[in-house]
Amino acid sequence: MITEDLRKQILFINELEKLKLVYRQNGVLDKSRPENSAEHSWHIALMAILLQEHSSANNIDILKVVKMLLIHDIVEIDTGDTFLYDEENRNNAHIKEEKAALRIFGLLPKKQQEEFIALWNEFEKRKTPEAQFAASMDGLQPLLNRLITTEQNENPHKMTKSAVINNKKFIKDTAPQLWEVAEDVIEKSVDKGLYIDNMEEHR
Amino acid sequence: MITEDLRKQILFINELEKLKLVYRQNGVLDKSRPENSAEHSWHIALMAILLQEHSSANNIDILKVVKMLLIHDIVEIDTGDTFLYDEENRNNAHIKEEKAALRIFGLLPKKQQEEFIALWNEFEKRKTPEAQFAASMDGLQPLLNRLITTEQNENPHKMTKSAVINNKKFIKDTAPQLWEVAEDVIEKSVDKGLYIDNMEEHR
Repeated sequence: MITEDLRKQILFINELEKLKLVYRQNGVLDKSRPENSAEHSWHIALMAILLQEHSSANNIDILKVVKMLLIHDIVEIDTGDTFLYDEENRNNAHIKEEKAALRIFGLLPKKQQEEFIALWNEFEKRKTPEAQFAASMDGLQPLLNRLITTEQNENPHKMTKSAVINNKKFIKDTAPQLWEVAEDVIEKSVDKGLYIDNMEEHR
Repeated sequence: MITEDLRKQILFINELEKLKLVYRQNGVLDKSRPENSAEHSWHIALMAILLQEHSSANNIDILKVVKMLLIHDIVEIDTGDTFLYDEENRNNAHIKEEKAALRIFGLLPKKQQEEFIALWNEFEKRKTPEAQFAASMDGLQPLLNRLITTEQNENPHKMTKSAVINNKKFIKDTAPQLWEVAEDVIEKSVDKGLYIDNMEEHR
């Protein structure tokens, strides 16, 4: 017999299909389309497993990190992807995202609803070592992706180096070695014309 | 300082971009493109977390299941996706996939190479409860996806109901309740004209 709870789980699993149609700012290697939030989530979940040793916190619960990363963007099914550097919309986005979390995770059986909403909130608040490490993966991957998938001098949003550093520098506390990678990638991206170098005076 | 091992990890992470360009037989909801192996991997990793309680084995190591599912298709970067119902090519595929596993996981630092190749082999052999449950996710998701993303009567490969059941019936041992879901989805898919009903005599 297929229980009511199992029906809810399958409904939720079918709902997840929609995240494959939420497209982000970055692209894929052959430049045929933007990257979507489902494949981005796969990428960063696997990154967390691979890069775990670089966490500055000891003994992080890696399963929790992976769960957070697999679900962190599901709210975008209702809200769409909000561009990190669009500050006005990012603030408005959070209220919409909370509503989306309640609707979408609300499709699940009660116990899983509670678990997933709690996980999503923990990720959003960035207070625990797990949420911070997860956020570092979510912060690092777009830098890596952008450097290798974007044409020379392509910067339609006129992103600046200082804005990128400002948005990503939290990685330094969570995973100092990965921040060195991020700095290196940002430097190479500036050289490729992907961010405006507005920090020359600091050199 | 960015260590040699960290450089290898980043190289592997960049290599993963290619899986976003490996397209499968099934599609996405708006029918704009086929599903790719990266977003498929995200979907089934999350399914494993959600559906864990339905495993017939007690106390499966869910982190191991999730790791297997996140990496199970990476070999397709070199081999492409092999259609499940194309039996001749499926047999040839395995040799190519082993070579691909050695090349791609070989990009990683030694310890992670060994861990990931072992995980991939464990998944491929389908002997442990973790590998079997992971395989059930990989078997169930395309059924669910096909029913909701495919146009009525679209069955270019002339797949038959008996072939589908034959390929998927292993789910029954691993997760009997999920097999009931699979049977229900297969029935609905036959009604939608997605598989040829060659089993009418058994009704």
